[in-house]
Amino acid sequence: MPKRVDHDERRSSIAEALWRIASTRGLEGASLRDVAAEAGMSLGQLQHYFRSRGDMLVFALAHINELATRRIRARVEASAGGPAPRTVLRETVAEMLPLDANSRNGHLVQVAYFAQAVHDERLRHHAKDGVPLLRELFAGQIRAAMERGEIAADRDPDTEAMLLICLVDGLASHALLDVQTPRETMRLAEAHLDRLFTP
Amino acid sequence: MPKRVDHDERRSSIAEALWRIASTRGLEGASLRDVAAEAGMSLGQLQHYFRSRGDMLVFALAHINELATRRIRARVEASAGGPAPRTVLRETVAEMLPLDANSRNGHLVQVAYFAQAVHDERLRHHAKDGVPLLRELFAGQIRAAMERGEIAADRDPDTEAMLLICLVDGLASHALLDVQTPRETMRLAEAHLDRLFTP
Repeated sequence: MPKRVDHDERRSSIAEALWRIASTRGLEGASLRDVAAEAGMSLGQLQHYFRSRGDMLVFALAHINELATRRIRARVEASAGGPAPRTVLRETVAEMLPLDANSRNGHLVQVAYFAQAVHDERLRHHAKDGVPLLRELFAGQIRAAMERGEIAADRDPDTEAMLLICLVDGLASHALLDVQTPRETMRLAEAHLDRLFTP
Repeated sequence: MPKRVDHDERRSSIAEALWRIASTRGLEGASLRDVAAEAGMSLGQLQHYFRSRGDMLVFALAHINELATRRIRARVEASAGGPAPRTVLRETVAEMLPLDANSRNGHLVQVAYFAQAVHDERLRHHAKDGVPLLRELFAGQIRAAMERGEIAADRDPDTEAMLLICLVDGLASHALLDVQTPRETMRLAEAHLDRLFTP
């Protein structure tokens, strides 16, 4: 059992080394050798865990997606019977936007992945993996708000969920380019929610 | 005068070579030497026009942005006294989405730029250059629709314009990842416009 834990820890620490590289200068230049150096191990040691650069990228992406999904799911589940759907949506959206330095770093990693995924089918498959779950979580909150009479009954929860996901994605990109400040980014997200929450 | 034309043509053909590289495999790996080869000239000839990789990237980005802005502006101006604001917005949005192979290529170039711009202040400056003009064009159409009573008077045109820009950006990213088909992408954009055009 300890061996297994070591193995998982090693893979995670490689993913984190890759994360640091992606957030400072993007992924395309990063070789297995660069990542090994950043993770403080030899190229041979790293290759024990990942035979190719592609395997490493896919693992690290799946790892990041899993952490993000777990965080969002925990937030939504913790809210069962608690805060109103609008509060849950606003907080989840805030968590998905680059509103502070830490979250900005996470977004820079996602940008690096995105830029590779559009040219790489295996990575693209993983990059879009989290979308259906997120759409389902958002649609669930929207449906709950409709039952409470807070959103008009003729809205389609799946359409609204997908529009919100895409809007948040575009808001995040424009925030990363400094087109708008974090405060203005959140104000725009709230304006969209105001529109959605019309009985 | 002919010399000047040659000069501009040469720069444009270099930008187009860069575009082809960006749309097939991204920009980060592309050296001045790669671009020279793609443009069918020597490294020395290319360096006559651009002293550094950064200069070349900035010129090509400005060139792409100018072409896109000119296209969108022409479309909006051609519509003066013609089609209704909603038609103009729908057509402009359609032009901004990767709905066919050609436009998909253009978007792949933008993705490659975006991935570099988040790490490069000079490029970031140029990448966000087109946003204010686009926001102004959209806000103008929204204002016109408000005057016609097609959009509720309490909407803020600048906020609505920025939300539309961000939504289109997120829709484009998800279309590039094949999360949704071009047809579904356009259906989502229309659903947002339906919501906006509520008297």
